[in-house]
Amino acid sequence: MVLEIINNPGDLKELSSSELSLLAKEIRKLLVDVVKNNGGHLASNLGIVELTIALHRVFDFSKDSLVFDVGHQCYTHKILSGRRELFSTLRQKNGMSGFPNPNESRYDLFISGHSSTSISSATGLALGKKIRGDNSSTVALVGDGSLGGGMCFEAMNHAGGVGADLLVVLNDNDMAISRTVGAFVKHLEEFRSRENTTKLRNELKELFSKLPLIGDSMDWLYEKVLSELKNHTGAAAVFEAMGFRYFGPFDGHDIEGMEEELGNLSRLSGPRILHVLTEKGKGFKPAHSDPESFHSSAPFVIDNDSGDILKTCYEEHKKSYSEAFSEIIYDMAGENDKLVAITAAMTGGTGMAKFAEDFNDRFFDVGMAESHAIPFAAGLAKVGFVPIVAIYSTFLQRSYDQIFHDIALQENLPVIFALDRAGLVGEDGPTHHGIFDIAYMRHLPNMVLMAPADEEDMKLLFDFASTLKSPSAIRYPRGKVGSFLPKGFERRAVELGKGEVLREGGDGTVFAYGRMVEPVYSAATRLEEEKGIKLAVVNARFAKPLDKDLISESAQKGIIFTVEDHALAGGFGSAVGEYLLDNYEAEITLIRIGIEDKFVRAASRNDQDEELGLSEDRLFARFIEEFERLV
Amino acid sequence: MVLEIINNPGDLKELSSSELSLLAKEIRKLLVDVVKNNGGHLASNLGIVELTIALHRVFDFSKDSLVFDVGHQCYTHKILSGRRELFSTLRQKNGMSGFPNPNESRYDLFISGHSSTSISSATGLALGKKIRGDNSSTVALVGDGSLGGGMCFEAMNHAGGVGADLLVVLNDNDMAISRTVGAFVKHLEEFRSRENTTKLRNELKELFSKLPLIGDSMDWLYEKVLSELKNHTGAAAVFEAMGFRYFGPFDGHDIEGMEEELGNLSRLSGPRILHVLTEKGKGFKPAHSDPESFHSSAPFVIDNDSGDILKTCYEEHKKSYSEAFSEIIYDMAGENDKLVAITAAMTGGTGMAKFAEDFNDRFFDVGMAESHAIPFAAGLAKVGFVPIVAIYSTFLQRSYDQIFHDIALQENLPVIFALDRAGLVGEDGPTHHGIFDIAYMRHLPNMVLMAPADEEDMKLLFDFASTLKSPSAIRYPRGKVGSFLPKGFERRAVELGKGEVLREGGDGTVFAYGRMVEPVYSAATRLEEEKGIKLAVVNARFAKPLDKDLISESAQKGIIFTVEDHALAGGFGSAVGEYLLDNYEAEITLIRIGIEDKFVRAASRNDQDEELGLSEDRLFARFIEEFERLV
Repeated sequence: MVLEIINNPGDLKELSSSELSLLAKEIRKLLVDVVKNNGGHLASNLGIVELTIALHRVFDFSKDSLVFDVGHQCYTHKILSGRRELFSTLRQKNGMSGFPNPNESRYDLFISGHSSTSISSATGLALGKKIRGDNSSTVALVGDGSLGGGMCFEAMNHAGGVGADLLVVLNDNDMAISRTVGAFVKHLEEFRSRENTTKLRNELKELFSKLPLIGDSMDWLYEKVLSELKNHTGAAAVFEAMGFRYFGPFDGHDIEGMEEELGNLSRLSGPRILHVLTEKGKGFKPAHSDPESFHSSAPFVIDNDSGDILKTCYEEHKKSYSEAFSEIIYDMAGENDKLVAITAAMTGGTGMAKFAEDFNDRFFDVGMAESHAIPFAAGLAKVGFVPIVAIYSTFLQRSYDQIFHDIALQENLPVIFALDRAGLVGEDGPTHHGIFDIAYMRHLPNMVLMAPADEEDMKLLFDFASTLKSPSAIRYPRGKVGSFLPKGFERRAVELGKGEVLREGGDGTVFAYGRMVEPVYSAATRLEEEKGIKLAVVNARFAKPLDKDLISESAQKGIIFTVEDHALAGGFGSAVGEYLLDNYEAEITLIRIGIEDKFVRAASRNDQDEELGLSEDRLFARFIEEFERLV
Repeated sequence: MVLEIINNPGDLKELSSSELSLLAKEIRKLLVDVVKNNGGHLASNLGIVELTIALHRVFDFSKDSLVFDVGHQCYTHKILSGRRELFSTLRQKNGMSGFPNPNESRYDLFISGHSSTSISSATGLALGKKIRGDNSSTVALVGDGSLGGGMCFEAMNHAGGVGADLLVVLNDNDMAISRTVGAFVKHLEEFRSRENTTKLRNELKELFSKLPLIGDSMDWLYEKVLSELKNHTGAAAVFEAMGFRYFGPFDGHDIEGMEEELGNLSRLSGPRILHVLTEKGKGFKPAHSDPESFHSSAPFVIDNDSGDILKTCYEEHKKSYSEAFSEIIYDMAGENDKLVAITAAMTGGTGMAKFAEDFNDRFFDVGMAESHAIPFAAGLAKVGFVPIVAIYSTFLQRSYDQIFHDIALQENLPVIFALDRAGLVGEDGPTHHGIFDIAYMRHLPNMVLMAPADEEDMKLLFDFASTLKSPSAIRYPRGKVGSFLPKGFERRAVELGKGEVLREGGDGTVFAYGRMVEPVYSAATRLEEEKGIKLAVVNARFAKPLDKDLISESAQKGIIFTVEDHALAGGFGSAVGEYLLDNYEAEITLIRIGIEDKFVRAASRNDQDEELGLSEDRLFARFIEEFERLV
């Protein structure tokens, strides 16, 4: 084992060519072994093994700076920078984060899980180091998908304009999460294929063909002109126009080739971009042939003989919220030809694949451009469509100003935001929890905020949203969608700002929001059975507008609990509190249960729920505790 | 008067060449006449008169779509589209908005005041119309400054990739609000100067010089190659790489030339960009020679003889908060060489001009790229600097996710956000109010939120912020900075999460935040004098963390008021309410005064304060009313 002797990146420098190849193999085996147990980002990490080794051989990142964009492609980097032993705890409770984390290692500079930030922060590092007279290198490692995010453009425009001493390594694996769209990325593809088919080349060819025949020098000239043009057209021209010197594309799986290029580039200064081609999933057949499924993978089991995947732990035969969403919007689109759908490079993740296939003309994947997605939706709404914008809660944070400016402010645009992965997300940790969406949207006039308690409710809320003349947001969590109500329970029809009473009870009322309704309902049922305490349970459905009548009535009857999978500051319970303080003129007993003011580390979501008091057991215990304290 | 017969854009089509020139003159006169009384965006509107006329002559925007980016350059459009008579009410209470507004006219599609959104929404319009089989034209009008915003890149990448039928008119007036920076914009400048000095051209020249002499055909070829290259290098190459066909640059003050180009372009389809050169302030000498001062101007007085500006109504000889900030950070920078400052195309507006001049190596204007500014600041902080990021409260909304991801999540980055124009801003109206910043930052762990009550307090808070190891935000309003405390009043030193008691009083306590402290203090003084009611007044200083002890003590004494220049939902009062509900176990009487859940229309800020109950008189009356109701 070569890997066993690599305890810090310095140890890499001693390795021979054959040892390096062996090392890459060993790392790939480790990546597969750990991810098959723990789940994680696999395809992108398999693609970047050689590039990471080369980076660590050329630079010394105890002094030089390496910034990862999005961050989930940092596994090899972690293994090589003193965390090999820790790697088996990837994404586990108290284990190693799946993203860079300065608390783990001085080799990690920033926690990063959202896209397109690395060139910006690297520019800050580079300009800061320049003032300090520190001439160490600064490297930003960014994927082709992230490059479609506008912040990369902003950062390159800035860095290029001021001549920041910065190397951007573009890891072009020809695929962001779902197939990236966009003209710019098409140009990157042209580089991949190395076909000389750009418009300019054709124009030049035509021009040369009109010339009087003047012998070989014309052919020579044509070839020279073409080679001069190489760096001035298509994607390279964009980089050059931004003030970056462009190099590439090069084979990112050739360690020694990479080392040579990186070595050359390390001796230059100013804004430089190195375009590297890699293959997602390289070295592990299942991920190589289906990189989208292995972008972020659940644990899986491999057949030792064939190397095939026998099953993934997704296959619980339980429907996820994303799958339920998929069916709901598919059915809605069949009935309503005004319905259009927008995703930001998450066609698979948000459950849009079937919609995209069968309603292709009404489906828009804007790439990793969550900001653009919002005024784009406003435009579609303006000409009569009902856009459903499906973006994970945490990534929709990138669109906050646009939701204010391009949607809420316009008053009557019927845009529906579908916030998948709302609440705690488990192993992806604090960059990916969607626990702020109520807080960042509730203060925007005209917004309607909803969350379903189960699958049937989800359908009812989406149907309702599509009848609104105003914008709305429906949040729903990662994972399986429940169906916990007694058979034959008659659902209350959805009405703006009205909750659904799921069980009556004279001892107090719990207003539960979204995913929390199920454990609250179970805990309340147990509470009556085991303790004789009768708590009414309300599926709140709306965080805005609130069910004022029901809240007032409940306050008269006694204690009120609110339970939410969201930050307590500015969340659903905070809204209930505001209403009561403003309107209810007697003593209020409101117990708000939710997420305290701190970042929640990676662990399974069950562990997180347990730790934060959101599991059924913890809720059961909390209800008893509060009753003992107060009543 | 030609202008008098223009009641809708259709009337323009009848005009002769000389009438058009006359019309442009008359419009400029009207612009100056109204803005000198009402204040408003002058320089950009003076620059775009001919272009707007040409657009309305070529297109029929009752059917075709015109989207304004940022929107403040829409005055001529408003005058020509049936709102000439209304124009004198520009930015007044119940008057015409200074930004496009669909409630005013069907010729306005979206309210817009934030930058870089137009290509996105126009792409939505274009793709929506395509599905509907509507083949009317879609035009986005965007300035060169806005083009530095990453969303424009995201939108062009998308529109170019799918071939959206869209015309982008780039109004290049060579200056955003302050001098725009960035490599991309430098390339636009190259077009302006039409110098053949690009790198590629030099390389080609060298290449041709090496050829054997073959007579005139070589020169001819060289010229042809150069002209072919024109559209494939620099900024044009960026547009071409995005899938846009580039046309220009053209003189934007030549109505007939513009008409011809627009006419040609209107007959093409697909993504097109027309690059138009205009001069800010054209036709009005003071604005032409100092466009930054006349970007957004206060009312002013002109000398009828000389045409000079005699005075602007800014000149009240009272210091503004921006000016106080300017002095504070200048002094801080002199004492602390780790202090660096970042602005987003607002060097003048945020009061950074002097800092930029004297501490040039520590000053960074990133252009209209508020998103990029944040991870850029994180990078600077990471290598030991203390960045002050000065961005208007409303524009910092564009950075919400980055404040979460790149600052708060990193835990210990001492970045100081200076939020100018926090609270109501008066005549600029709902796109520009900064009334959500507490709500969008309070739920982010590690953030410290502050607001000063007066100039001395502002200095104390900035000094305090610079000692913190965590990120902080200091909000302060538009307009003059007060100094209302009695001479010799001894200020309490700033301590994390501690308010400052300005006056004692046994009948209740008002926690006032930021700008509201002054009118609250005055109202409370009057209340004692006129009604004998003794209200304690607290300069809260912190919205996070709160002064828990002082709030608890005050609750024991009786009624608590909170007063803030911010949305009630999720604001300072909401935070106080959360704390009391969670911790105070007796009846709570909390009266939260702030901004209700609706958008606040343009008017003077005094009128807005009066209307919303935030003026001293309204506060005085409200205190009495609540005492009569409750006590």
